[in-house]
Amino acid sequence: MSGEVFRARYTLRFGQCDPAGIAFFPRLIEMINWVVEDWFAGPIGQDFATMHMGANFGVPAAALSVDFVGPARLGEVLAYDLRVAKIGTSSITFDIRAAVEGGAGVLRARHTIVACDLSGARPRPRPIDDAMRARMAPFLIPETGDKA
Amino acid sequence: MSGEVFRARYTLRFGQCDPAGIAFFPRLIEMINWVVEDWFAGPIGQDFATMHMGANFGVPAAALSVDFVGPARLGEVLAYDLRVAKIGTSSITFDIRAAVEGGAGVLRARHTIVACDLSGARPRPRPIDDAMRARMAPFLIPETGDKA
Amino acid sequence: MSGEVFRARYTLRFGQCDPAGIAFFPRLIEMINWVVEDWFAGPIGQDFATMHMGANFGVPAAALSVDFVGPARLGEVLAYDLRVAKIGTSSITFDIRAAVEGGAGVLRARHTIVACDLSGARPRPRPIDDAMRARMAPFLIPETGDKA
Amino acid sequence: MSGEVFRARYTLRFGQCDPAGIAFFPRLIEMINWVVEDWFAGPIGQDFATMHMGANFGVPAAALSVDFVGPARLGEVLAYDLRVAKIGTSSITFDIRAAVEGGAGVLRARHTIVACDLSGARPRPRPIDDAMRARMAPFLIPETGDKA
Repeated sequence: MSGEVFRARYTLRFGQCDPAGIAFFPRLIEMINWVVEDWFAGPIGQDFATMHMGANFGVPAAALSVDFVGPARLGEVLAYDLRVAKIGTSSITFDIRAAVEGGAGVLRARHTIVACDLSGARPRPRPIDDAMRARMAPFLIPETGDKA
Repeated sequence: MSGEVFRARYTLRFGQCDPAGIAFFPRLIEMINWVVEDWFAGPIGQDFATMHMGANFGVPAAALSVDFVGPARLGEVLAYDLRVAKIGTSSITFDIRAAVEGGAGVLRARHTIVACDLSGARPRPRPIDDAMRARMAPFLIPETGDKA
Repeated sequence: MSGEVFRARYTLRFGQCDPAGIAFFPRLIEMINWVVEDWFAGPIGQDFATMHMGANFGVPAAALSVDFVGPARLGEVLAYDLRVAKIGTSSITFDIRAAVEGGAGVLRARHTIVACDLSGARPRPRPIDDAMRARMAPFLIPETGDKA
Repeated sequence: MSGEVFRARYTLRFGQCDPAGIAFFPRLIEMINWVVEDWFAGPIGQDFATMHMGANFGVPAAALSVDFVGPARLGEVLAYDLRVAKIGTSSITFDIRAAVEGGAGVLRARHTIVACDLSGARPRPRPIDDAMRARMAPFLIPETGDKA
């Protein structure tokens, strides 16, 4: 019932910064993919290698919405905090926030992925099973009557 | 008065695809940055090199919202169509749609950037001047009473 | 008998430059992969999509040696010139040179790839067939008694 | 007299793999840049942010030579081992070897960078000072009469 947070830390590297000396924004979005990957490999117990290579199972992106709230600079450690906003039949919507660790915010995002069978010519949604759903549950943001 | 479209074409390369054989989605978002870069260097007459190196002027991302509507596969030519949804004092909001050229849609995006002075410690919004505004105007989507 | 050159042009983008304002060198190496990809898809008539997806055929890198001879700056058009130094049973060694178009040199590289069957657990070299060999021949640097 | 090894570990991510399911080789080369960056920020006490932003000091690549000795697969932890082969007046040559942690080799590289003053129009070599040289010394591969 808690709304646990999964936190991953990524140091902003030289090659991820642009000539303005701050993060090139597509690299910050790549890190959104990283934190989802690390969450699956960690608490969810589904690493992407087994998923894609063994099981023809994947989680393509369906939607992404990001507000960039402050700059991230070369060498800063960015804390990416992942929570789950919603679990549908096949889709998962994440609430992801990144900040300079111990400092100012960098981005806030909503990101939806869809569990898919990849064995055919085109990804086909498939239901998230109960075992996986149970491992995801602790990260679900509790619903309240209030607006977040 | 038309709402001109600026189209750029990018072939989806091997290194931009993932083990599922389709585009790794952060690379599709990187191409959103490319089409903005190509539009500035082309019709707007402001290449990023002169902008950043000479003039301490930059256009950091403020927001991005993307719906992924279909897969993009290795070797496909993607047509990125850029139009301008809104020009504010310092901000520009783009409407960007990508599709397999002559084929199915790949993504639809809204993307807002902010013209900034980069000479200080932190990017500071600065007004878009009239000359640049005039060059942007033809790409502005005409307002109508209808929903798009 | 000529030693034809295959030239591809890539503009150095904002996101490929680092905080020093010059190309982040792994991006210049990524472009070495691009010119090989474009050469296969062009004169060799083997696009990577058909190759990898249809035929379980691939060309993993075996070796790469690069000398960086001058900086490449944001916005510059880089001309990548590819020639073939050697065709073995399964391997191809390229001579690749990049320069600012109409300007100073950026890099000189030797790059060896190996034609492989990818259907097994591990890439397995397979001979380059005569048809492909014939299409590669015009790009072969003529052997002389002199050192290059 | 030791020839210490600096080891960094990087998990091969989904977005760093190609449609063949193995590492896209330019990403393995990007990790060569990472281990150099981590070595400077760690034992050498010179993080790239301070170096580039504060001091107009940088270490552009001069040369790179890589042999790819085995595939790296999605999800594998790669151990990058860095030693110093040679310290010149302004240049540093690294010996870098990567392997699947506890497993087979992935690559062996020689990589030369040059300490440069970046305040002018073009990078200009500058001598490595004695303090930095002393911190680099433990990683120097001892010279012997034998070939490695």
